[in-house]
Amino acid sequence: MIDAALDEELPPANERPAVLHRAIRYSVFSGGKRIRPILCMAAAEAVGGKAGDARFPALALELLHTYTLIHDDLPCMDDDDLRRDKPTCHIKFGEANALLAADALQAMAFGVLAKARLPSRYPPTALLTELAQAAGSRGVVGGQVEDLAAVGGRKLHAATVEFIHLHKTADLFRAAVRMGAIAANAGRKELQALTDYGVNVGLAFQITDDILDGGPLTGKKRRLDKSSCLAVYGPQDARQKAEVLVGRAVTWLQRLGNARIEPLRALAQFVIERVY
Amino acid sequence: MIDAALDEELPPANERPAVLHRAIRYSVFSGGKRIRPILCMAAAEAVGGKAGDARFPALALELLHTYTLIHDDLPCMDDDDLRRDKPTCHIKFGEANALLAADALQAMAFGVLAKARLPSRYPPTALLTELAQAAGSRGVVGGQVEDLAAVGGRKLHAATVEFIHLHKTADLFRAAVRMGAIAANAGRKELQALTDYGVNVGLAFQITDDILDGGPLTGKKRRLDKSSCLAVYGPQDARQKAEVLVGRAVTWLQRLGNARIEPLRALAQFVIERVY
Repeated sequence: MIDAALDEELPPANERPAVLHRAIRYSVFSGGKRIRPILCMAAAEAVGGKAGDARFPALALELLHTYTLIHDDLPCMDDDDLRRDKPTCHIKFGEANALLAADALQAMAFGVLAKARLPSRYPPTALLTELAQAAGSRGVVGGQVEDLAAVGGRKLHAATVEFIHLHKTADLFRAAVRMGAIAANAGRKELQALTDYGVNVGLAFQITDDILDGGPLTGKKRRLDKSSCLAVYGPQDARQKAEVLVGRAVTWLQRLGNARIEPLRALAQFVIERVY
Repeated sequence: MIDAALDEELPPANERPAVLHRAIRYSVFSGGKRIRPILCMAAAEAVGGKAGDARFPALALELLHTYTLIHDDLPCMDDDDLRRDKPTCHIKFGEANALLAADALQAMAFGVLAKARLPSRYPPTALLTELAQAAGSRGVVGGQVEDLAAVGGRKLHAATVEFIHLHKTADLFRAAVRMGAIAANAGRKELQALTDYGVNVGLAFQITDDILDGGPLTGKKRRLDKSSCLAVYGPQDARQKAEVLVGRAVTWLQRLGNARIEPLRALAQFVIERVY
């Protein structure tokens, strides 16, 4: 459902400039897990709405996430040649085109929000505010800058790891469930419970990412240089922390007190049990 | 007025991550002409509103423009060490931080639009739609990709130059006057006249940029490699083209039929008479 909607939203691959639209489609359809749009739609359902209520915010989240991956892979950032076993965007289309494809994806992420119609309980720009906060210097970008600053042998403190995980990752998870909930007319208490769910799941996701990156499964060039919670905790402690966070997320979910929380509960569990 | 509003909008330079917020402020306050926000506010006045009606779209335009300059200067793009006689953002703060500062500026450009309250004649997301179109793969980014593809000795056709000028530059000028006009409750005919004004002024601006870049005043590293209308027309013809465009822009302005068009008329003239 998400892939079909993304396909509908993106300009055709042969539209001028074709190299740009090919690069955009290459990165958007490169096998992502779609976890942020799924969380967004599941949050809409959890408050009694339909997945389709969250269509445009869900697309926005995946477009925004895709842009961050393209920029993260660039030579001046993580300098990765492969992502999900395929050449990264800049390897395939050149650095300048990759940089610009990502820039266009960010613009498109915001633009698609203009198509959403919000329930009257919320200001008509509520989704825009959520995404801009999560995406900006106090969100994903701020977390990424601290992440890069933490690379290179400097002693990493637990508080720095938490700042990085919170902003680099959890802010967008938080926005995902909030945007879905807002689009489906969530009440104040529902929105708060889902916000806390989102933060906890986001933190658990990033701990799991760090564990997976540190393991034998990855082929990333610079993984040993990257900031990781494994610089602060051992893998056992990290795994336990992730479990505690998921436990908290599920406790928050239960406050919603309805039967439609099962997908969100299963997603929280998936986040720490995944092997990719 | 614009600088004070930008200062108010941006996070303080010492907010964590400080290097990011310093880089953002460095680039935003580096002596830009502020022509896009000025056009936006002048358009609001031309349709009977106040400059303040266009405060948030004006800020959004300058934040977005600033991000494009930072990315344009990166090594994988124009590779410029200086902009307005000062070190470019990546020379001063490093490539990764410059890349990310620009990414945050784009998010902030969209986010600030959530603060604007639109007249009921327009959908509440009208400004978002305008900016996203101008900024995306069918706007500024599309123009930039074609611009880069045109570099490197390939024969440049007039139609390609027009595509580049239209999207790389005129789309944002068009958005600037439209957003100001929308924020100030422009009628349909007023909006159309200002749209045509904006496109013509934007095209004249870029021709003038190409002439200035090709002249002895510039110190840009790669100016001889860059696509320029001077590859298609001589400087005399280019100058005459710009004058014709400004003439057209002023004709469109006159259809507004009021006394408050003088600033927009003067701006159109400035665009081709400037020497910087």
